[in-house]
Amino acid sequence: MNFSNLEKLGQNARLAGYSIAKASTEQKQKVLRHLAQTLRQQSEQIQQANLQDLEAAAGKLDQVLLDRLKMTPSAIETCALGVDQLASMPEIIGQIHGMTQQVSGIWVGQMRIPIGVFAMIYESRPNVTIEAAGLAIKSGNACILRGGSEAWHSNQILLQLVQQSLETGGLPAEVVQGLPTTDRKAVDQLLQMDTYIDLIIPRGGKSLIQKISAESKIPVLKHLDGNCHTYIDEPCDLDMAWKITENAKTQKYSPCNATESLLVAKSQATKFLPKMAEILWQKNVQLRCCADSLLLLQAHFPSIDKDLCVLAQESDWYTEYLAPILSIKLVDHLDQAISHINHYSSHHTDAIVTSNHGHAMRFLREVDSASVLVNTSTRFADGFEYGLGAEIGISTDKLHARGPVGVLGLTTQKYVVLGNGEVRE
Amino acid sequence: MNFSNLEKLGQNARLAGYSIAKASTEQKQKVLRHLAQTLRQQSEQIQQANLQDLEAAAGKLDQVLLDRLKMTPSAIETCALGVDQLASMPEIIGQIHGMTQQVSGIWVGQMRIPIGVFAMIYESRPNVTIEAAGLAIKSGNACILRGGSEAWHSNQILLQLVQQSLETGGLPAEVVQGLPTTDRKAVDQLLQMDTYIDLIIPRGGKSLIQKISAESKIPVLKHLDGNCHTYIDEPCDLDMAWKITENAKTQKYSPCNATESLLVAKSQATKFLPKMAEILWQKNVQLRCCADSLLLLQAHFPSIDKDLCVLAQESDWYTEYLAPILSIKLVDHLDQAISHINHYSSHHTDAIVTSNHGHAMRFLREVDSASVLVNTSTRFADGFEYGLGAEIGISTDKLHARGPVGVLGLTTQKYVVLGNGEVRE
Repeated sequence: MNFSNLEKLGQNARLAGYSIAKASTEQKQKVLRHLAQTLRQQSEQIQQANLQDLEAAAGKLDQVLLDRLKMTPSAIETCALGVDQLASMPEIIGQIHGMTQQVSGIWVGQMRIPIGVFAMIYESRPNVTIEAAGLAIKSGNACILRGGSEAWHSNQILLQLVQQSLETGGLPAEVVQGLPTTDRKAVDQLLQMDTYIDLIIPRGGKSLIQKISAESKIPVLKHLDGNCHTYIDEPCDLDMAWKITENAKTQKYSPCNATESLLVAKSQATKFLPKMAEILWQKNVQLRCCADSLLLLQAHFPSIDKDLCVLAQESDWYTEYLAPILSIKLVDHLDQAISHINHYSSHHTDAIVTSNHGHAMRFLREVDSASVLVNTSTRFADGFEYGLGAEIGISTDKLHARGPVGVLGLTTQKYVVLGNGEVRE
Repeated sequence: MNFSNLEKLGQNARLAGYSIAKASTEQKQKVLRHLAQTLRQQSEQIQQANLQDLEAAAGKLDQVLLDRLKMTPSAIETCALGVDQLASMPEIIGQIHGMTQQVSGIWVGQMRIPIGVFAMIYESRPNVTIEAAGLAIKSGNACILRGGSEAWHSNQILLQLVQQSLETGGLPAEVVQGLPTTDRKAVDQLLQMDTYIDLIIPRGGKSLIQKISAESKIPVLKHLDGNCHTYIDEPCDLDMAWKITENAKTQKYSPCNATESLLVAKSQATKFLPKMAEILWQKNVQLRCCADSLLLLQAHFPSIDKDLCVLAQESDWYTEYLAPILSIKLVDHLDQAISHINHYSSHHTDAIVTSNHGHAMRFLREVDSASVLVNTSTRFADGFEYGLGAEIGISTDKLHARGPVGVLGLTTQKYVVLGNGEVRE
């Protein structure tokens, strides 16, 4: 891979971006419908290509990664369904809103338009290739995809199907391009190509994202930690508090929106905490407690299993466990809960359980996180659950897009001004 | 200046940011009203401090810079008026919109909130200190200001007045802090402090902005070139075309939204161009013409002043003159005009003069610039003219804020979710 090849790839992406930006809704729908259909028709060929990847990876990757890599008939059908759903979603490109007339006579509003070109860097799961391509087409952007080397054959056939579908709709195949190599140096080079790429979207571990952010000349849609909190306020509905906390922590341990830290108003602790601990211990969740909550639980449960109830360290308040572990801290009042969250949280998703309206309002306003929830589970912080449709990631940045990012997060706005010969005095 | 001092400044800004983020509208109005009043009352003291700067700068700065530095009674009154206007503008912080109920039962919407902390780096004009402080207070952000060394004494007294006003409203003085030094190394350090600062806003020359963008770990609100185009389409109202072009080029030469390049549909050239040239030549505007338009003008005006009508070089199509110079190119049709603009323009502001509705619609949709105008002057691309109120800059970036940036551009949104005990299945 040499520089001029990548340069050409970037130029092609920029030009293809202009083509798809002005494509009609009908054209884009045709492409997406064709893609969904061809995914179903070519299901066996996709599985054959995928088998090559699986065989090469056998013994090298652990079972979790192998599962992510595998494209079963039902996984392919899920991809096709997702693309069909995108085709059915209302068009957002070209929408003009806020058109108001100014004193000078001109009308000023904003039009929603694609960003231009994004590059996505991801691992293992080949279905991300289809998700990213579908979102690019729907949002009118060109994209450059760089999947993991372990999914090379799967991604190649998927890219072919995407490019054939684009051509069916009269759009250039270069709207969706794959990097023609998995050489890491090509990624390094990509991150410098700010003339051709407007946004980098990495999907992967924190260290990958930090490395890309540090090296990129191009803005990066970042998703770092999900150190999420649930705060049990006084007064609140205790049944609701137990149910929500159980769901937020244990419904699934690996997602970034799972609760990692539980704050409890001191005046609620004796009523709320013992039963909560029992519920969590039944699922083998280890509790890492502040000194006060540890004393309280030890007093209630003298024959406590010491591995399931330990003293928290300072570092625990910062930690995203993604595992059956929960840190617990008693706080004096709402103010302390908010300060603790704003200090330790990763500003991803934080919830309060309360029946006090004023407390709910203050929590919503003052907690500085991408999603702030009242009386519900942090697990809801998700593009589909928010009604945004397919999700390209969850942003923990403040600028551009914050929280779950769907098609809308791949767009920007420009000012449109309509005059009738007005000039500036 | 050592690192720990700046670190402390950043920490204070972050904490003050949380205070002003939750301040009531009443509190912020009180601060702004007090500031406007105190600016008027202390007008003489401000002028005395300003005199120290003017005396130190005499002989070192040219007249343009000295004029920018000077704080006359009327300049001070203008500052006070601007602050009063901000106080009167409607509150945008805390607005919740788009609240819709999802299938799960939860309600999801977005709340407008401050970004947190911004740092502004600027030169000469001390009134920017008041503009930035006013916008920070209105938008609920803390800010760190770094003005030019030549305005040191003026900025010091203005900062004092701002901080006194903040305290009058029960807000921490650290909401608006000045860098305690003009040492350039302090700026270098500031650009690395992404823990405490969310956005850098440079105001100054292109090289300053490029340097800051290259070195900053923090997102930068960039305003680079304003290479703006006006395209004269066929058909169009010729009187309108002459009037708009004259205004766009000559109403003022230095602003970034002045037109630098004129595109003319070939079929309009003989009707439009000779009279346009005469209008511009009366104001001593040099025309740098493509070969076709040069021939046309030479044929019409055999005794043409050769300095006012020259052959354009390739580099002219890229150039922001900020001077009585205009590049002119004939194009075959709308498509060529749009391609030329998307290739050479700085994506700042571009206009079409046309009476064809379809052409207007295509131009609006397909020109990839922050502001796209139909039948009016590029000079309108401005925060006040767009009804945004005081302007902190014009962004040529695509992400976060594009085009003129006012109070709204200093805010972001978070998702707010209201539940009643719902959990995720």
